[in-house]
Amino acid sequence: MEDIKKYIGTHQDRFLKELFGLIQIPSVSSVAEHKDDMHKAASYLADQLLKAGADHAQVYSTKGHPVVFGKKIVDPSKPTVLVYGHYDVMPIDPISLWDSPPFEPEIRDGKIYARGSADDKGQLFMQAKAFEFLLSQGLLPCNVKFMIEGEEEMGSPSLGDWCRENKEMLAADLILVSDTSMIGIDIPSITVGLRGLAYMEVEVTGPSKDLHSGLYGGAVANPANVLASMIASLHDENNHITIPGFYDSVLEISPEERSDMARAPFNLNEYKAKIDIAEVWGEDGFSVNERTSIRPTLDVNGIWSGYTGEGSKTVLPSKASAKISMRLVPNQDPDEISALFAKHFESIAPPTVKVKVIAHHGGHPYVSPVTSRAYKAASKAYESVFGKTPVPVRSGGSIPIISTFEKVLGVKSLLMGFGLDTDSAHSPNENFHLECFTKGIETISWFYRYYAGDLASELD
Amino acid sequence: MEDIKKYIGTHQDRFLKELFGLIQIPSVSSVAEHKDDMHKAASYLADQLLKAGADHAQVYSTKGHPVVFGKKIVDPSKPTVLVYGHYDVMPIDPISLWDSPPFEPEIRDGKIYARGSADDKGQLFMQAKAFEFLLSQGLLPCNVKFMIEGEEEMGSPSLGDWCRENKEMLAADLILVSDTSMIGIDIPSITVGLRGLAYMEVEVTGPSKDLHSGLYGGAVANPANVLASMIASLHDENNHITIPGFYDSVLEISPEERSDMARAPFNLNEYKAKIDIAEVWGEDGFSVNERTSIRPTLDVNGIWSGYTGEGSKTVLPSKASAKISMRLVPNQDPDEISALFAKHFESIAPPTVKVKVIAHHGGHPYVSPVTSRAYKAASKAYESVFGKTPVPVRSGGSIPIISTFEKVLGVKSLLMGFGLDTDSAHSPNENFHLECFTKGIETISWFYRYYAGDLASELD
Repeated sequence: MEDIKKYIGTHQDRFLKELFGLIQIPSVSSVAEHKDDMHKAASYLADQLLKAGADHAQVYSTKGHPVVFGKKIVDPSKPTVLVYGHYDVMPIDPISLWDSPPFEPEIRDGKIYARGSADDKGQLFMQAKAFEFLLSQGLLPCNVKFMIEGEEEMGSPSLGDWCRENKEMLAADLILVSDTSMIGIDIPSITVGLRGLAYMEVEVTGPSKDLHSGLYGGAVANPANVLASMIASLHDENNHITIPGFYDSVLEISPEERSDMARAPFNLNEYKAKIDIAEVWGEDGFSVNERTSIRPTLDVNGIWSGYTGEGSKTVLPSKASAKISMRLVPNQDPDEISALFAKHFESIAPPTVKVKVIAHHGGHPYVSPVTSRAYKAASKAYESVFGKTPVPVRSGGSIPIISTFEKVLGVKSLLMGFGLDTDSAHSPNENFHLECFTKGIETISWFYRYYAGDLASELD
Repeated sequence: MEDIKKYIGTHQDRFLKELFGLIQIPSVSSVAEHKDDMHKAASYLADQLLKAGADHAQVYSTKGHPVVFGKKIVDPSKPTVLVYGHYDVMPIDPISLWDSPPFEPEIRDGKIYARGSADDKGQLFMQAKAFEFLLSQGLLPCNVKFMIEGEEEMGSPSLGDWCRENKEMLAADLILVSDTSMIGIDIPSITVGLRGLAYMEVEVTGPSKDLHSGLYGGAVANPANVLASMIASLHDENNHITIPGFYDSVLEISPEERSDMARAPFNLNEYKAKIDIAEVWGEDGFSVNERTSIRPTLDVNGIWSGYTGEGSKTVLPSKASAKISMRLVPNQDPDEISALFAKHFESIAPPTVKVKVIAHHGGHPYVSPVTSRAYKAASKAYESVFGKTPVPVRSGGSIPIISTFEKVLGVKSLLMGFGLDTDSAHSPNENFHLECFTKGIETISWFYRYYAGDLASELD
C-alpha cells in the first residue's frame, strides 16, 4: 500500500490548509461567547465530509452545541464503522504562556502549534483524510458514518440524548475514535481503558460580603482558609482519598495484570525532567503508571477567592470557590461518586461557613476488549506502519461519552489515537506532530483493509 | 459654638460637591493604570487646601505616588498640628457586587456610597472643612499642616523616606488622623491602638506547565492541593498560628486591661447577624473583641490557581498562588514576622513543589497614650458634640505609617476617626454617613479650641 504514502505526499499542503481552516475557528465549547463559532466549526466539517466523498453530511441541532453527522454507504450488507470525534476545544488561558496565538496554527520543528491541533481537530482530520483516500481509490471496504460533536470538553452533556433519538441513523458495528495518545512516536499503543470523571464545583461562603481583614480578621472564619483546610483533608497522609465509600467499587487489578503493565517502558528521571518536577507524588503502594491508570484520583482544577490582582489588598473574602475533579476507574459510577463527594464535603464544613456543591457532567470509566476483531485489525495496521506490535494501555484520561455509546447504541469503541503525552493537550502551546498526523492517516487506512477489506482474511 | 453647625448648614452642598469631585477621581494606588489619577487627585486636594485658606499647598513627588503638603502658620510660637490622611483608595473588585458605580458617589438613606467615601477621602475632607471653618471665623488657634499621601492602601512604601527628607517642613507637636472608626454613631470612641501588618505573597509551582489532569493526575503533586494543605497547616486545632516564633514578642495584656476592654458594649447575636454568619471563629481563650485587637491573626486575602472560568476544565495547574496577611500586635515586628513566615512556609513545602515567598510592605503596631493633652482635648471635643465621653479602643486595623511617624518625626498621633464598622471600607458598597461627616467636622473644630484655643484652660 505505497499508494497511501504517495497520496499524502501529493495532498499534504491541501490537508493542512483544510485542517488550519478548522483550527482557526475558536470553538471553545465551555465559553458562552463562542456559541457562533461552534456552528461555524460544525458547518465547516460537514462541508469537509461532503468534499471527502460522503453521500450525506449535515449539522444537527442538539440541546447544546450541534453535532455533525455524515455517511457513505458502500453496501448495506457490509459492516459499518461509526467514526466519533469532537470539534470543540479547551479554553486557552493562561493566554500569556502561548508562544504563538492559539487559533493561528503555526508549524515549528515538525509540529502544528495551536489549540485543538491534537485534541481533537487534528486527530479527527486523520479519520476524514483516510476516508477520503480509500474512497478516492475505490478501496473503502465498508460503510462509514461520522458523528462529530461540539461538547466533548464539557463532558458531552447533550450527545447521549441525541444518540438515543437517532439510534437508527447511528447503527454501526464499531465506533472508531482518534482522541487518545500513543506511548511514543516510535512506540505505538492502543488505548484499551479510560478513566471516568466526576467534576465538582464548590463554593464556601463566610460573611455575606467582603470584610476588612483588620477589623474582622481573627474573629470571623475566612472562607479561603476554610476551603484550604477542607481541600487538604480530602487526602490522608498516604495520599488516599478520604471520602467515605470512595474506593468501595474500585476494581482491584490482579497481580498478573499489574506485572504486565509494569513491562511498559518507563523512565522515572525522564518523566520528572519532562515536566520539571523534583519528585513524583501519589497513592502509597502504586507505581506512577498505576496511579494514572488503574487508580482513581482527586485534583483541584481551579481555585479562587479574594483579591488576586497586583499588589496587596487586605480583605477577608466573603466567598472561596474551587473546581475539583476525580478521575474514576472501573467500576466507579460518576453519579455515585459525585453524591459521595457532595455529602462528604458538606459534612466536613465547619459551622462558621455555608457550603454549596454542584456537579458538572461526568463520565463512566471504560475498558475495551483486546480480543475483538477490531482490536486485532488495528494491531495489524499499526504493525504495517510502525513495524511494531502496538502496546495495549490504559489511559488516565477520560472520554466520558465512550461508555454512553456502549449503553445507548450497544456498540464497542476502538481507540486509535495518535497524540503524544508531550502534545500539551489542554495546556498552552498544544501541538501535534506532523509525523503523527501522517502515520495516523496511514494506519487508519490499513485498519479498514484488515477490518473489512482485502486483508481481512489475515485475521482469521 | 453654634456657629459650626450653622456654617455646615450653609455650606453643606458645596462641601459635598467638592468631596464628590475628589471621589470621582479613581485613585486606586495599587493598580498601575491609575497612575495619572493619583496625580489628578493630589492636585485637586492641593487646590482644595488653598481654597480653604492654606498659605501654601503643593504636590510633592516621591518614589511612588505624590504627597500633598499644605500649611497655615498663624503664629510660629503656637503649637503645630500635622493632619495626615490619604487620597488613595482600595481596588473596587468584585465590581458586580456594587449597587451603584464605585466612583460615582450617590447619597442613599443618609449615606454617601462610593469607594473612598469613608476611607479616607470623606474623612480627610472633614479635616479640611474644620480647618476652613476655623480659619474663616478667625478662630484657628494654632498652626496647621497637611500631609496627604497616595499610598496608604499599599502600606505607604514611600512616605517614610519622604518624611525623613522633609523632616523640618513637617515639624509638629501632634499628628492628627481621621482614618479610623467609632464604635457606633451614638457611641463615640477614639482609637488608641492599631494592629501592625505583614503581607506576603506565595507561589507554589509543581510541573513547569499546566498538565492534563487525566494523564498526569494521581502521579504529579497538584500545586493547588499542595498550597491548600500548606495554608491549612498554618493554624492548629485551637486556631493558633503554627509559625515557630510567631507569638514570641506578643505583648500579653494584663487581666485588668482585659476586663476593662470587656466592658465595651458588644452583642454577639447582632455581630453575627450583621455579617450573616452562624458562628464566630478564632483563637481559643480570647473573646471576639480581643481576637480583633490584642491578638495577631493570619488570613488568606486572595488565592488563585488553574481554571476559574465558567464550566469545567480538567487541568492540573502548574502554579497556585495566595496573598496571605498577618495582623500584628505590640511588640511584633513586621520584618521579623515576614522573615519567620517565609522561613516556615519554605520549610513546610513538600519536595514535589517549588515555593516562592515575597513580602509586600507591612507596618508596625501602634499604641497611643490616653494621658496626653491631645487625647484629653479630643475627649472633651467628643463630649461637646455627642454628649458622651468617648471610649478608648484598640482597633484591629492597621495604619502602618503611624508608627513610622513616631520613629521618623518623633511625633505621636491622635486618631479621631468617624467611620463606622458598617461602612464597608475595602468592600463593595463602601459608604459614609452624612451624620458622621458633619459630626466629624464639628468635633474636630471643638478639638482645636480645647487643644490650643479659648477652651484650653479647661484641660488643666
